[in-house]
Amino acid sequence: MAGNSFGTLFRCTSWGESHGPAIGVVVDGVPPRLPLSEADIQPWLDRRRPGQSRFTTQRREADLVRILSGTFEGRTTGTPIQLLIENTDQREKDYRNIADRFRPGHADYTYWRKYGIRDYRGGGRASARETAARVAAGAIARKILGPDIVIRGALVAVGPHAIDRAAWDWRQVEDNPFWCPDAAAAKLWAAYLDEVRKAGSSTGAVVEIIASGVPPGLGEPVYDKLDGDLARALMTINAVKGVEIGAGFAAARLCGEENADEMRIRDGQVRFLSNNAGGILGGISTGQDIVVRFAVKPTSSIPTPLRTVDALGNEVEISTHGRHDPCVGIRAVPVGEAMIACVLADHLLRHRALGG
Amino acid sequence: MAGNSFGTLFRCTSWGESHGPAIGVVVDGVPPRLPLSEADIQPWLDRRRPGQSRFTTQRREADLVRILSGTFEGRTTGTPIQLLIENTDQREKDYRNIADRFRPGHADYTYWRKYGIRDYRGGGRASARETAARVAAGAIARKILGPDIVIRGALVAVGPHAIDRAAWDWRQVEDNPFWCPDAAAAKLWAAYLDEVRKAGSSTGAVVEIIASGVPPGLGEPVYDKLDGDLARALMTINAVKGVEIGAGFAAARLCGEENADEMRIRDGQVRFLSNNAGGILGGISTGQDIVVRFAVKPTSSIPTPLRTVDALGNEVEISTHGRHDPCVGIRAVPVGEAMIACVLADHLLRHRALGG
Amino acid sequence: MAGNSFGTLFRCTSWGESHGPAIGVVVDGVPPRLPLSEADIQPWLDRRRPGQSRFTTQRREADLVRILSGTFEGRTTGTPIQLLIENTDQREKDYRNIADRFRPGHADYTYWRKYGIRDYRGGGRASARETAARVAAGAIARKILGPDIVIRGALVAVGPHAIDRAAWDWRQVEDNPFWCPDAAAAKLWAAYLDEVRKAGSSTGAVVEIIASGVPPGLGEPVYDKLDGDLARALMTINAVKGVEIGAGFAAARLCGEENADEMRIRDGQVRFLSNNAGGILGGISTGQDIVVRFAVKPTSSIPTPLRTVDALGNEVEISTHGRHDPCVGIRAVPVGEAMIACVLADHLLRHRALGG
Amino acid sequence: MAGNSFGTLFRCTSWGESHGPAIGVVVDGVPPRLPLSEADIQPWLDRRRPGQSRFTTQRREADLVRILSGTFEGRTTGTPIQLLIENTDQREKDYRNIADRFRPGHADYTYWRKYGIRDYRGGGRASARETAARVAAGAIARKILGPDIVIRGALVAVGPHAIDRAAWDWRQVEDNPFWCPDAAAAKLWAAYLDEVRKAGSSTGAVVEIIASGVPPGLGEPVYDKLDGDLARALMTINAVKGVEIGAGFAAARLCGEENADEMRIRDGQVRFLSNNAGGILGGISTGQDIVVRFAVKPTSSIPTPLRTVDALGNEVEISTHGRHDPCVGIRAVPVGEAMIACVLADHLLRHRALGG
Repeated sequence: MAGNSFGTLFRCTSWGESHGPAIGVVVDGVPPRLPLSEADIQPWLDRRRPGQSRFTTQRREADLVRILSGTFEGRTTGTPIQLLIENTDQREKDYRNIADRFRPGHADYTYWRKYGIRDYRGGGRASARETAARVAAGAIARKILGPDIVIRGALVAVGPHAIDRAAWDWRQVEDNPFWCPDAAAAKLWAAYLDEVRKAGSSTGAVVEIIASGVPPGLGEPVYDKLDGDLARALMTINAVKGVEIGAGFAAARLCGEENADEMRIRDGQVRFLSNNAGGILGGISTGQDIVVRFAVKPTSSIPTPLRTVDALGNEVEISTHGRHDPCVGIRAVPVGEAMIACVLADHLLRHRALGG
Repeated sequence: MAGNSFGTLFRCTSWGESHGPAIGVVVDGVPPRLPLSEADIQPWLDRRRPGQSRFTTQRREADLVRILSGTFEGRTTGTPIQLLIENTDQREKDYRNIADRFRPGHADYTYWRKYGIRDYRGGGRASARETAARVAAGAIARKILGPDIVIRGALVAVGPHAIDRAAWDWRQVEDNPFWCPDAAAAKLWAAYLDEVRKAGSSTGAVVEIIASGVPPGLGEPVYDKLDGDLARALMTINAVKGVEIGAGFAAARLCGEENADEMRIRDGQVRFLSNNAGGILGGISTGQDIVVRFAVKPTSSIPTPLRTVDALGNEVEISTHGRHDPCVGIRAVPVGEAMIACVLADHLLRHRALGG
Repeated sequence: MAGNSFGTLFRCTSWGESHGPAIGVVVDGVPPRLPLSEADIQPWLDRRRPGQSRFTTQRREADLVRILSGTFEGRTTGTPIQLLIENTDQREKDYRNIADRFRPGHADYTYWRKYGIRDYRGGGRASARETAARVAAGAIARKILGPDIVIRGALVAVGPHAIDRAAWDWRQVEDNPFWCPDAAAAKLWAAYLDEVRKAGSSTGAVVEIIASGVPPGLGEPVYDKLDGDLARALMTINAVKGVEIGAGFAAARLCGEENADEMRIRDGQVRFLSNNAGGILGGISTGQDIVVRFAVKPTSSIPTPLRTVDALGNEVEISTHGRHDPCVGIRAVPVGEAMIACVLADHLLRHRALGG
Repeated sequence: MAGNSFGTLFRCTSWGESHGPAIGVVVDGVPPRLPLSEADIQPWLDRRRPGQSRFTTQRREADLVRILSGTFEGRTTGTPIQLLIENTDQREKDYRNIADRFRPGHADYTYWRKYGIRDYRGGGRASARETAARVAAGAIARKILGPDIVIRGALVAVGPHAIDRAAWDWRQVEDNPFWCPDAAAAKLWAAYLDEVRKAGSSTGAVVEIIASGVPPGLGEPVYDKLDGDLARALMTINAVKGVEIGAGFAAARLCGEENADEMRIRDGQVRFLSNNAGGILGGISTGQDIVVRFAVKPTSSIPTPLRTVDALGNEVEISTHGRHDPCVGIRAVPVGEAMIACVLADHLLRHRALGG
């Protein structure tokens, strides 16, 4: 119970269901005197907003954020900041048919088993709509981190099609509907996703987030290690099934001398010669880029009929038509960035308490 | 700061350095009247204990656990349980040479950057020795979970050599020094690891843990999801670089109808036809087996010389001789099991608070 | 930082300033399937609402509560409940004169020292308006506690005038504007408060809360003792300067045999012959009535001029005219009740996790 | 459950029973590089140690503390510090007679109701012996606070006999067995306590703690207010029944202009003309002395026979002979100081995280 908060000093508490009147998040622990208005938050929400291309859900939400507390004359005051986003495009009747049926791959069955009641409209609390709250909180986290810490995400694989890492170009990321850093891959994905959609199916994806400019020293061993907190933060995003840091699972196939990031002195500074660690050693940031990847499963709501059961114990079939992302991994990119920002902001404050 | 505890209701606080007088853990929140003595904990520690084969470190520690509080006449009382394990085989002088040098892949550099001081002896707090505390706590967690919840781990890959999953046999796991469920793979690994060791190197590995008998309903959306807490728990284990649930990263390559675990009624019960979800949907257990895997990087301490720097800013080389695991992934198996047990015990108690 | 939440399993996170657009509270950890609508909460807010007699502030707030999340078809779902109350009677210009001046007895000076910025309008976050959030949360807590646990408060002293405890009559409490259980005292207080107000002054008060029907066993030694959590909860209410349990400070003047609550068997049940303990022993509820009292200081905003300083370091005088309670202790009664309800609900859930 | 920790960044987790092998505390979140050895902690334990005068229990405990972790070469490392104190003077057989009987005023009955099992020897976990862990932790807290923050306690009333505050002399406090700042009162108390003891009784007391040099700005509104955390910390000490800040309960009898602490500028600094607030406004320290008082009930273990019941439902009598404090309030002085130190250290670190 009481599982809707995360962070220790920078602490977010979110609330709201997909088809209730609104969703939102209380962001507590924000240092005072930071300039903050809706204009600082809205652009990040706009990046996540659905309906921006044919590859994401056609639900139309303006996702306009309002600050209800915690600022005064355009600056934070140190008191909790309530961010509220109204739900405007609810189509309750779309969901009558799933009131008693458990969609495979969704949380329908488990919410019903856990709570004995569930708001079935659009997935209720389990809807990816909740991630708007994360993105809004992430915008505040970025204000705490300041301009020197840059957090950027990209989609690095869609279904079986991975990018060519040699072709990585950050400028591409904003130029295609996939946050794809490889122009050739983006073209391939467009064709692939059209095909997937026509087939009444969906596909998974892999997201990579890189945080640059993070100072060494963030992370609190041994259970609040930075990588532990990042893994949790990302794994709680809807549809995420795996998280890795640096070389990640590939590290398991390496030998010791390949994996070790050797160090030299360059211009009087310690420099690592590689970054298999993904910027974290012993749960503490090294000062290198923090590199994390996470796997997003294919959208569970698909037109293809699936076998399932209902709450009365009947065997039924279900197929989902209407507004759904063929690849939820796409919109997971800004969400992942936001979660990284929140975790880093929390650890920055925690580290500051050390006087360091 | 204050990062040495985990869990909400079942809460573990560990302490101790590799070469201090002792290590231990306070386990708080244990329900009363459970039978508990050292004999319930010691066998689990013995499984993790170093020096049991030529494939693990030759450090000799009896790892005898003492219960200093929280039990009375052989039963828990509901008060905190202090478990203490003395360090007996400390060889402080082995570490003089690393007092000022940062071993690549270790936490030496980051502890120094974070704290400005570090206990360099055997890695201090960052030593894998700390995992003995986790295993001890896990033994108590198992008592809470009861005999119907069975948590078993296995090594499923060593370096480039994965098991044949078709050959999986749990009985094999206790019969070879690798917790390997595939007899043929175990033989191959023995040869491979001998070769690795002779080469002055080390190798990574992948561990898989399966928890059976977990009731549906465990997990607290949306930030204390069961998979989120599992990911964090595993990612905080030394050398772990990736965690995945169920199909994990492979799910990113699947299409929707492949990934969805369809449901039917069998003998009046809901049955899933597959388990790509790894027993968790929407952050809540489904009642299926919970399946998690984690990647362990190769041991960073190797005889092969590596380039590094020292605290004075000099470029130096370092090579580690002596007592080290060529594949730390092996001993991570019981540690991973213990962490899963702790997370499940915590969520079992949290769920019970719902009256469910 | 991040100090705007309380409770472990039943967890409240409040937000909002006196003169912002709204205030509210996220109540997380509420068990599912409890009937809940605005009609369950509004009556408790109405009891606290200002402007109901000439003895409280004349600020006019409807204090209408809206549930924005966490319920479905009139029942709780186990997800976080956002309660929102709009601020409607803001008079910003009333506060221009205190923008730079520190009202003695208020949080003006300390917020300025802590945060370097403050929302001076009506005290901002430090306003007693925040207690509406507590009362709203308390209404939900009462639903968890159920009808057998009854929490009632009364004013037992106003300035130097205490009630005659022999005259205690709960029916009186709802019949006078002071929540006074002693009809004679209520008359005296009315006259006294008229006098105080005419004198441009204010007065303190003592509130007593009694919780009946609390089962034995609630409270988590040794740092989350029930009395410890109650003391904290009450001490965080605006203007509270002291908290006591049972005999409280009077216990310090007793000898051992007077203070000890002896026990006998009555009708096969354990019965205590007195209740100096106030229903709590060793931090755990005994099953007797839980009795707590707290002292509320006189309202700091008074017409009588007081010496103070401003943010520029000038010595100035300040006097407060307008809408203020001559005795804030009166409206503290429903607030105190609500805080007790919240603490008990949290401990009820925590105890339930024990399987007890 | 899991109620044996307190603090957010400076976090203490205590464990141990009165008659187990040892008691102790893990102190987590201590900043690195502070000089710390047993010699910094032992003097504070010696002040609390029993058996130092005829007015405290004659149990003989050396209370020697050992640091088992968290320091290296005489300095803290930022890792958790385990402090262990062995129990040496256990007399288990003294307690056989209370194995099934509930001593009035003790936690015997409530532990039995809550847990269904209890370690009856010397009160088990509910013993005042647990306060040694608090005092040990407090010694580390003082190192964090540094020499400019001075925390001193005194006994200000024993039974009906209060000190003459005009006669307050801190030098007296170390010169009598009562921590009494008024030499005349100390003499009176000695005679009174001899009388109480001869009568087979015990008496309550009031303790006052003053923290000087605390900077303005500590405390996290609105639920982690400094006074709220202080109240909780003190209320969790054994036998405490009331806590007040500054004028405390007396504030309820004051009028507004008496209670308000007016401000002037003196030597360019803000100066308060009184301190009814006890150094805290709006839950944040003002920079004035922090003044708290707490009431300690009379020792419940007395030779005079008391009526009670046993676990089988029989009515019995109980009288306690042997080693008990006639006035536990005396030894509560160093305990109260320690708890204040711990709360202030935690809030100092929390405030530092703000960058303030």
